[in-house]
Amino acid sequence: MEKMGCPGFLTAGVACGLKKNNQKDLGLVYSEASASVAGVFTRNRVQAAPVLLDRQRITAGVCRALIVNSGNANCCTGDQGMQAAMRMAKSAAAGLGVSEDEVLVASTGVIGEPLPIDKIESAVPGLINIMQPDGVLNLAQAIMTTDTVPKVISRRGQLDGKTFTVTGVAKGAGMIRPDMATMLCFVMTDIQATPNALKQMLVAAVNRSLNRITVDGDTSTNDTALLMANGVSGIRIGNSAQQEVFQAVLDDVLIALAKWLIKDGEGATKLVEIIVTGAATEKEAHQIADTVANSNLTKTALFGEDANWGRILAAAGRAGVPIEPQKIDIRFGSVLMIQNGMGCGQAAEAEASKILKQPEYDITIDLKMGSCSATVFTCDFSIDYVKINADYRT
Amino acid sequence: MEKMGCPGFLTAGVACGLKKNNQKDLGLVYSEASASVAGVFTRNRVQAAPVLLDRQRITAGVCRALIVNSGNANCCTGDQGMQAAMRMAKSAAAGLGVSEDEVLVASTGVIGEPLPIDKIESAVPGLINIMQPDGVLNLAQAIMTTDTVPKVISRRGQLDGKTFTVTGVAKGAGMIRPDMATMLCFVMTDIQATPNALKQMLVAAVNRSLNRITVDGDTSTNDTALLMANGVSGIRIGNSAQQEVFQAVLDDVLIALAKWLIKDGEGATKLVEIIVTGAATEKEAHQIADTVANSNLTKTALFGEDANWGRILAAAGRAGVPIEPQKIDIRFGSVLMIQNGMGCGQAAEAEASKILKQPEYDITIDLKMGSCSATVFTCDFSIDYVKINADYRT
Repeated sequence: MEKMGCPGFLTAGVACGLKKNNQKDLGLVYSEASASVAGVFTRNRVQAAPVLLDRQRITAGVCRALIVNSGNANCCTGDQGMQAAMRMAKSAAAGLGVSEDEVLVASTGVIGEPLPIDKIESAVPGLINIMQPDGVLNLAQAIMTTDTVPKVISRRGQLDGKTFTVTGVAKGAGMIRPDMATMLCFVMTDIQATPNALKQMLVAAVNRSLNRITVDGDTSTNDTALLMANGVSGIRIGNSAQQEVFQAVLDDVLIALAKWLIKDGEGATKLVEIIVTGAATEKEAHQIADTVANSNLTKTALFGEDANWGRILAAAGRAGVPIEPQKIDIRFGSVLMIQNGMGCGQAAEAEASKILKQPEYDITIDLKMGSCSATVFTCDFSIDYVKINADYRT
Repeated sequence: MEKMGCPGFLTAGVACGLKKNNQKDLGLVYSEASASVAGVFTRNRVQAAPVLLDRQRITAGVCRALIVNSGNANCCTGDQGMQAAMRMAKSAAAGLGVSEDEVLVASTGVIGEPLPIDKIESAVPGLINIMQPDGVLNLAQAIMTTDTVPKVISRRGQLDGKTFTVTGVAKGAGMIRPDMATMLCFVMTDIQATPNALKQMLVAAVNRSLNRITVDGDTSTNDTALLMANGVSGIRIGNSAQQEVFQAVLDDVLIALAKWLIKDGEGATKLVEIIVTGAATEKEAHQIADTVANSNLTKTALFGEDANWGRILAAAGRAGVPIEPQKIDIRFGSVLMIQNGMGCGQAAEAEASKILKQPEYDITIDLKMGSCSATVFTCDFSIDYVKINADYRT
């Protein structure tokens, strides 16, 4: 496997006993130099303790480390939960010899159970002991819940004759309909930039990636996306041309991670890009794409590999946007299935059926009302989604 | 079975070949006297031909008959679809000897396939031939799609020493998240009232019943609820006291039908009433109840009989209402599961598990922010829901 770590960052993941079967559930990111940091967090009104803590700490714009656990969301856990989040940061800070304020915290897993903070504290010295430049896969494993594979994307870019790296790790795989952030996603880079510039670039990238996906329409209480920049590449993002170069690489990493989250969505067998074109505004395009991408009837039809376009039109029709159904074209891949609001017949359906058997494809809905468009990535809705979520806590 | 028909109405249902296995798919309601009529229809922007036709015809406020088919929604079928809907009405009008304008039409089934109008026209004479005062069960069977049982509710009331009857038939069982109307629901009564009064009472009843249910969050293109009043009881609804008496019976019929639709929702094994209390406004209470009732993660947990209240709180948190999580109480039946935003522990969970095994129960979310409340009925989300909808057209 190609080298995936980001220069100047050490990472690690261990099992501390929160998850069953000795699976990794505690992860660490440590920056050798002080890093600028920016974050976006869930807009759910119910927010986990680590989210509340990070929101405070991130205002300083600097960060040395992140400690994260899976197997327990530390959400709806009251004052005790906040104490536990702070103890988590404190134990990492003590072991790493950094200031407590410069350690961020994240958690994911079951909501409403007390966080077994003792187990975490006992495991921190061992965690710190094994951190290394190439530990990112262990970190990615340590944040998995119902994910079937760890997710790491690393890309390099060039600026002023020097190379920079952007390495992102993320986890899904249910309660995914991000609203300004998604689930857990941590991005490390070795460029140097102000916290404000980082925030601007992170928000832009998230709006093109993590905010354009849905697995099941449920927004998590723990959504957190963090971008840490430690400057060890010697590249400083000063002007907008430099920012553009970095933004492109950052977008690339986040879009790849976002698509991966959907591909590995709970029970998912298909990755489907819902593209709405010809809308009057981008907002309306997004509203329709989002409604179709979240329609259970559309998603079960995708699972059944059934070109049931009536469900797509019906979902578009309830999105709260003034559409003109008799104008709409719908394509499955390149196959025109609906023209001017009416089906294109058996031959088109036969062609579309072939598209629907593929693991990845797109569906384009052309409203023919304007020139704006939007894309949302979704997955199908399978029997396994129900099985996974009926039995999640058992 | 108790007599379910409504005086002055003849009803019928036959198989005309739209559905497989010779299942009934064509139904008729005929009023012996000219009836006042009111209707509410889907707010989906994509509307089926029969909905468009009825919207025009119902403005006259009078109606003699309704012809309805299942197995095909006659939606997204263009001009041809509108012609077919008109031919459907015309053939019924000709056979019954009434004016074409006084016949309403409804369809339900697959979207986007041409309506086989020839089959319907051929079957109309036979349909008219068998209509009878007690044919309502045949009518209810003829409008079923994925419903497992026909749904008829009949109630009687007293006014001025006379008896009146309200008989409603309805069908579900998927694409159910009504918005001002739901699916197909036809109500016959023998009181006399102006179309305006009927409309007012129908809207009030629908807002307490059909607009308070969800199976899968998808709003249909064919939702239609009609109320026909033929006056043969000799009771005239004149003043508001009389209207109140009738409204109570009408509400009773529609709430019973609405709950039945959920109980027979696609794949449903539970009927769950989501009650939100202590909200600042009724709108906010409804918004939260609706978001919880449509949360796939909540619904799969209900299927798994898992008291996973974190998912309920997470759904409430993303409803777009400014709640204070640390104040919230949640009860499963009478069991307090969450107090002030935190779990009540193992004993409460054990009690709640018993509630969750019941086929019908309620979940109460007390926001403690105000005095308004709202209720939404939902069902669980099962493996069978996915099976039914992955294979719907095959």
